[in-house]
Amino acid sequence: MMNKVNLESKLRSFDEFFSPKIVARMNDYKIAVVKTKGEFVWHKHDDTDDFFLVLKGRLRIQLRGNEDIVLGPGELFVVPKGMEHCPRADEETHVLLIEPAGTLNTGDAGGELTALEETI
Amino acid sequence: MMNKVNLESKLRSFDEFFSPKIVARMNDYKIAVVKTKGEFVWHKHDDTDDFFLVLKGRLRIQLRGNEDIVLGPGELFVVPKGMEHCPRADEETHVLLIEPAGTLNTGDAGGELTALEETI
Repeated sequence: MMNKVNLESKLRSFDEFFSPKIVARMNDYKIAVVKTKGEFVWHKHDDTDDFFLVLKGRLRIQLRGNEDIVLGPGELFVVPKGMEHCPRADEETHVLLIEPAGTLNTGDAGGELTALEETI
Repeated sequence: MMNKVNLESKLRSFDEFFSPKIVARMNDYKIAVVKTKGEFVWHKHDDTDDFFLVLKGRLRIQLRGNEDIVLGPGELFVVPKGMEHCPRADEETHVLLIEPAGTLNTGDAGGELTALEETI
């Protein structure tokens, strides 16, 4: 597909929170957008770092044993492989995520917030 | 390093065009920002896709055998592996790039625009 991706337009096309939608792929990675509000779940990814870039709002990434990282628009953070973390947003927040395809959003934690990989 | 990255702040810290600066790493990938103005060089990457997200300005990605892709802020495009392309910006344009570490900015073309990998 030789189409560009407009992130705002993709984000306007769905409403659910904590349900990442894949908008592009790069090699064996998925590029996704997600809407967050409230607290996610503590989890870690033993096999991969975890990329977050905030597009709108404010994301607090709680890190086990470290100070929280608070991201506003245009700010990114990469959670190191194996580090337990829990994202939280007090207001509706939009985030660009990049991870290897097949990575579960809830990592080792599983549970009801685990989302299927969905492309929009 | 448990530091977030503010992209605007990183971009304020240098002036050169077509000289990507690495701001973070994710697994074996580099995440870089670049300032562009003018035309780059036709090239391709035989081993990797090439991720572009425009942060400011307007980037025209010329693609051999395909229509140009024109990106504004908040728009991204992944150039497929092996596809010859040439980015061009008429105004100063800021871009987030993601590629495997070690990928040359000029791909197979080489030449004087080839930049060293520099982290800021």
